[in-house]
Amino acid sequence: MNYLKKWVWGAICLFLTLPSFSQEHPSIMLSKQNTEALRKGVQTYPLLKKSWKKVKSDADKAILESIEVPVPKDAGGGRSHEQHKKNYISMLNCGIAYQISGEKKYAAYIEQMLLKYAAEYQKWPLHPKRKEGHQGGRIFWQSLNDFVWQVYTIQAYDLAHDAISAGNRKTIESGLFEPILKFFTVDCAETFNKIHNHATWDVAAVGMTGYVINKPDYVQMALKGSAKDGKTGYLAQIDQLFSPDGYYTEGPYYQRYALLPFVIFAKTINNYQPELKIFQYRDQLLSKAIQTSLQLTYTDGTFFPINDAVKGKTYESSELVYGVDIAYADIKASAELLDIAEKQGEVVVSDAGLKIAKDLSEGKSKPFVYQSQLIKDGASGNEGGLGILRSGSNEDQQAVLIKAASQGMGHGHFDRLNLLYYDNGVEVFPDYGSARFINIESKKGGDYLPENKTWAKQTIAHNTLTVDQTSNFKANADLAQQSSGQVSYFKADKDLQVFSARESNAYPGVEMSRTTALLKVKELKKPLLIDIFRVNSEKAHQYDLPFWYKGNLVDVAPKIRNYTDQLKPLGSKYGYEHLWLNAEQAVPEKSGYLSILNNKRFYTVHFATNAPLNLKFVSLGANDPDSNLLESKAFLLSSSDSKDQLFFSITESHGQTNSVSETTTGANSMISDLKIITSDPNQASFSFKVKGKTYQYQINYNSKENFIKIN
Amino acid sequence: MNYLKKWVWGAICLFLTLPSFSQEHPSIMLSKQNTEALRKGVQTYPLLKKSWKKVKSDADKAILESIEVPVPKDAGGGRSHEQHKKNYISMLNCGIAYQISGEKKYAAYIEQMLLKYAAEYQKWPLHPKRKEGHQGGRIFWQSLNDFVWQVYTIQAYDLAHDAISAGNRKTIESGLFEPILKFFTVDCAETFNKIHNHATWDVAAVGMTGYVINKPDYVQMALKGSAKDGKTGYLAQIDQLFSPDGYYTEGPYYQRYALLPFVIFAKTINNYQPELKIFQYRDQLLSKAIQTSLQLTYTDGTFFPINDAVKGKTYESSELVYGVDIAYADIKASAELLDIAEKQGEVVVSDAGLKIAKDLSEGKSKPFVYQSQLIKDGASGNEGGLGILRSGSNEDQQAVLIKAASQGMGHGHFDRLNLLYYDNGVEVFPDYGSARFINIESKKGGDYLPENKTWAKQTIAHNTLTVDQTSNFKANADLAQQSSGQVSYFKADKDLQVFSARESNAYPGVEMSRTTALLKVKELKKPLLIDIFRVNSEKAHQYDLPFWYKGNLVDVAPKIRNYTDQLKPLGSKYGYEHLWLNAEQAVPEKSGYLSILNNKRFYTVHFATNAPLNLKFVSLGANDPDSNLLESKAFLLSSSDSKDQLFFSITESHGQTNSVSETTTGANSMISDLKIITSDPNQASFSFKVKGKTYQYQINYNSKENFIKIN
Repeated sequence: MNYLKKWVWGAICLFLTLPSFSQEHPSIMLSKQNTEALRKGVQTYPLLKKSWKKVKSDADKAILESIEVPVPKDAGGGRSHEQHKKNYISMLNCGIAYQISGEKKYAAYIEQMLLKYAAEYQKWPLHPKRKEGHQGGRIFWQSLNDFVWQVYTIQAYDLAHDAISAGNRKTIESGLFEPILKFFTVDCAETFNKIHNHATWDVAAVGMTGYVINKPDYVQMALKGSAKDGKTGYLAQIDQLFSPDGYYTEGPYYQRYALLPFVIFAKTINNYQPELKIFQYRDQLLSKAIQTSLQLTYTDGTFFPINDAVKGKTYESSELVYGVDIAYADIKASAELLDIAEKQGEVVVSDAGLKIAKDLSEGKSKPFVYQSQLIKDGASGNEGGLGILRSGSNEDQQAVLIKAASQGMGHGHFDRLNLLYYDNGVEVFPDYGSARFINIESKKGGDYLPENKTWAKQTIAHNTLTVDQTSNFKANADLAQQSSGQVSYFKADKDLQVFSARESNAYPGVEMSRTTALLKVKELKKPLLIDIFRVNSEKAHQYDLPFWYKGNLVDVAPKIRNYTDQLKPLGSKYGYEHLWLNAEQAVPEKSGYLSILNNKRFYTVHFATNAPLNLKFVSLGANDPDSNLLESKAFLLSSSDSKDQLFFSITESHGQTNSVSETTTGANSMISDLKIITSDPNQASFSFKVKGKTYQYQINYNSKENFIKIN
Repeated sequence: MNYLKKWVWGAICLFLTLPSFSQEHPSIMLSKQNTEALRKGVQTYPLLKKSWKKVKSDADKAILESIEVPVPKDAGGGRSHEQHKKNYISMLNCGIAYQISGEKKYAAYIEQMLLKYAAEYQKWPLHPKRKEGHQGGRIFWQSLNDFVWQVYTIQAYDLAHDAISAGNRKTIESGLFEPILKFFTVDCAETFNKIHNHATWDVAAVGMTGYVINKPDYVQMALKGSAKDGKTGYLAQIDQLFSPDGYYTEGPYYQRYALLPFVIFAKTINNYQPELKIFQYRDQLLSKAIQTSLQLTYTDGTFFPINDAVKGKTYESSELVYGVDIAYADIKASAELLDIAEKQGEVVVSDAGLKIAKDLSEGKSKPFVYQSQLIKDGASGNEGGLGILRSGSNEDQQAVLIKAASQGMGHGHFDRLNLLYYDNGVEVFPDYGSARFINIESKKGGDYLPENKTWAKQTIAHNTLTVDQTSNFKANADLAQQSSGQVSYFKADKDLQVFSARESNAYPGVEMSRTTALLKVKELKKPLLIDIFRVNSEKAHQYDLPFWYKGNLVDVAPKIRNYTDQLKPLGSKYGYEHLWLNAEQAVPEKSGYLSILNNKRFYTVHFATNAPLNLKFVSLGANDPDSNLLESKAFLLSSSDSKDQLFFSITESHGQTNSVSETTTGANSMISDLKIITSDPNQASFSFKVKGKTYQYQINYNSKENFIKIN
């Protein structure tokens, strides 16, 4: 246990002897002593002014509408579901509006609504619908939504607290919040004591409520678990859910989601008990987690959509607005965070938002710097990790992510050694993300679709090797959870960035390794993406290495011919049943290329291998009776009967087209003559030509000093 | 012949007696007397400054490179093709750079390059490659590119003229321009005397060259045709290629392209012979043509891609930059044009550009107003037309285009009564445009692909009715050229916009009519798109009415099931061979709906008909061995054996999703209960409900006064 951790634990043990908390309100995102400054700030600093304007407009709209507290009945996206979601947002907005404007009507709205909930809540049984495989809530179809509801609602209550009569406070606390505390800790005890993001929402809701309505016992349980032994609860979650690099094992989409209860509960703890120094806990882990969340986005702000991710989610989401505001105001005022706050276009109308908006208006912002980095996974940082290679400005950046991490629990995909490639503001080799139309009720209530299991999680849906048309670990998540990919090498020099990793468990008897580099050669403006996927086995297997791509194919060698009068699925399980086989072509030369035009830029993928090869083209959509799958297409480097094989590819980003001026430049790739020279367990070496000049590229798998050699 | 036309003709007859033209240079886009003002302007007015900076930077780059005049050998997109294109652009930039900076090095570059061309040109035979079905050039694979080359090059020569020694001028004129004049008028006589956009480039090149090198005879031919009888040539082209509304029969994409030689030649004529009042010719036809070009774009600036259009082309293209600059400076200084110029982000560094940039900097701009309008086709305006209905601001506009025009010559599609729908900045029901990867050499040299004929032109590729799986006119262009659609009705009131048209010739014995409206009802924020497609025949036919759509299907009634394990083409010819049939479902109720999520907004298409119906889902890609076709999908309202039938649909644009905040609002359509009440040749009437309120909608086909009745 390091020093800071000891400190926090010591302080916690100390506080357990204290009988109760200071009852000053508000005391979470807004604090009483800061109210005057904030009231001036919303008139002064543009970003805060804009954010306040929106809050006030929403609050003004809310108070004009009748208060609706429907009996819970609908699934996600349905009417009662959306109304209860709307209610907590309206209450929070009104709470802020009350504090800023001092107008009682906003507090009265919260008071009336909470009284209505207090009158109804205890009559509601468990929600009649149930999100598949999830614990039910009472207000919503899963308890998670109830936890989230309470994290927002308790803030609204804290904000309106002093304007609500003592009698009504008693009614609300005894009729609503106390039953909720009981439901969250007793009925939902299993979730409460998990090491899981749902549990974080649960403990945050319980802990925040405990502080605000002065129930120290619940705060203790929130921090240390029901048994108060520290094996579960908030601190155990910080210890175990994040890696030392601040990576949350489920991936960026859930990292973002998990982050909010972590940081907002931390902020609450810090306000009520600053002596706990919670932001220092585990070497400022929460600060790292926020930084890592930002580093897990492409330059357009979207999160890398590995695992069960909803695509299009960006750091503009409210969780990161909270995260960035708190990180800047309460942990470390890094000028780069101001750049993100500015792109988010809003701040939380709060003490933290005031600080951000003030500093932004004073021109303190610096451009956010995206790093090439290795992000380790696992509570101890020894369960593999993500390699991120980046080159170019924030306006036109190549970004490569290779995933050699742990399974990532229930939302993990079977995608060991998966590769994602972005350039020029768009996806080049995308990840499918999850199969889900979030919040679209006609699509299974907005929940994960069956195709999330049959397709999105399967190995073939990803840019990595599938062996024998079977997913990693035969798609057994429990088995997959027992091991992780392993990082062999990472380096990020100016002209050469490399990440190398291996996977030994996904297929028994099959060793896989992937070594991916961005290599800048002087003949070309942009670095080349060089990818060496190596597989070794004593037995022969079928290998499929797909490249899911965006854009339109404009050239292929060897020449291919699509099937013209009939399409059939490529296989029958592990996701293959969803692929229409559009074309297949033997590649007698064992090498070839494909040129793709994507967002007015060309991507030519040259490939070479050392065993007989077929080039297959597939598109998504077979065995999809309900049109649940999105248009997607790939080419596969495919070997039907091979033991040791090495797939060598170079992707060149080149040229441009302009449909307005109707001009095309740089349409021809400058790369040629890919050759595999040697391939053995210690060393693999290759050559290729750039504008006729030969390059030799060598991987020394067992040499950290000389892992890659180029001449 | 109207007054203005008589004036121009009278003036032309007068000038024919003149021996030669004033030889002051430059005298096209830049004029000698304006040089000083322009030199100051590039330092003063932001848009001109920016445009000049780009020209100068390109010119500076050009003069550092060695002059390359390769022997012509490559097709479109190939090296020699692109080099010769680059040369004329470099020369023009250097010409402007010379005039603005006064630095001789720029003029010397033009001089040297033209001397090189003069030394080579006469050695070149016809280009060894040939664009299919087109007359060959000498510098390029089609003569059209040679004409374009000369339109630019003669401007560069005019700009550099005074800095080139008399001896070298003689060499250039006798070795290059005179042979070019001969080639364009004699070898290319057939093109020269066509009424066609290629001919416009030819006569503009010849006429402009005639003015600049003082060859009045060629100017006469350019204006009045080889025979100088006015039956062909520039004026005949203005008379015949445009409708009285300024519509060019080939459609917006070619209208834009055709426009440049028209306006730049007009500008040249106006400079050399202002007494001709060419801009007044045919009631300011050229001004109307420029306005109409702009009105034929959606709010994102893209041209409506009917006929053979390259999609993504916008009014930012250089042709419209010239057009807008000249329209503003030389025809009518409308403040709305400044808005377009600002969006174009550049002006021609010229007299006209100076005026635009100056007025823009003085804040004279007004937002461009998109009109709902009927644009008539045909030289006399009696060959049908386009109906455009618009609603909403330039930031979020519904736009509907219905095409009931003439065939539009060789680039026309078999798409009588085609409908395009845009909303929220994107395509909702798109048109495919042409099948072409322009300037991508690996794709048939960037030319039209075979699928342009087999797919893009065919009726089923469009949002209109196909009868008996056969295209309009059995896809016979000559036959189609003989008749046009006919406009029945057009009206653009505030809450009701209607366009109605009929087509009687596309299928013998089959009468078709389409009546499309944007109807604002008080219950909803956005107008409804109401579409009544009616077909009448004494014999039974198969009818297919497709809706090509963008986005993802999220709900359908009746429920459908896609084919899961095999796909087959829907047909064998007229484009049907390119469609995979994904699903088909009988609609016993004769009505149903589909909800589509597109760019975070919902579109629910409710439909009802009065004969047995099948709902079919198709996607593009069958019989496409070379991957020439782009991903596209449609649903078809399909009747297998019907005589008179009426397809009634209402498309509601509603709600929104937000992937960042993960919220969905307004996902449910408010429309229900579509019914066809009566349907006879004089009258058709319908009812539907909006939020439960019943609307009656009646079309009185023979009443201009009371065409649509609503209650």
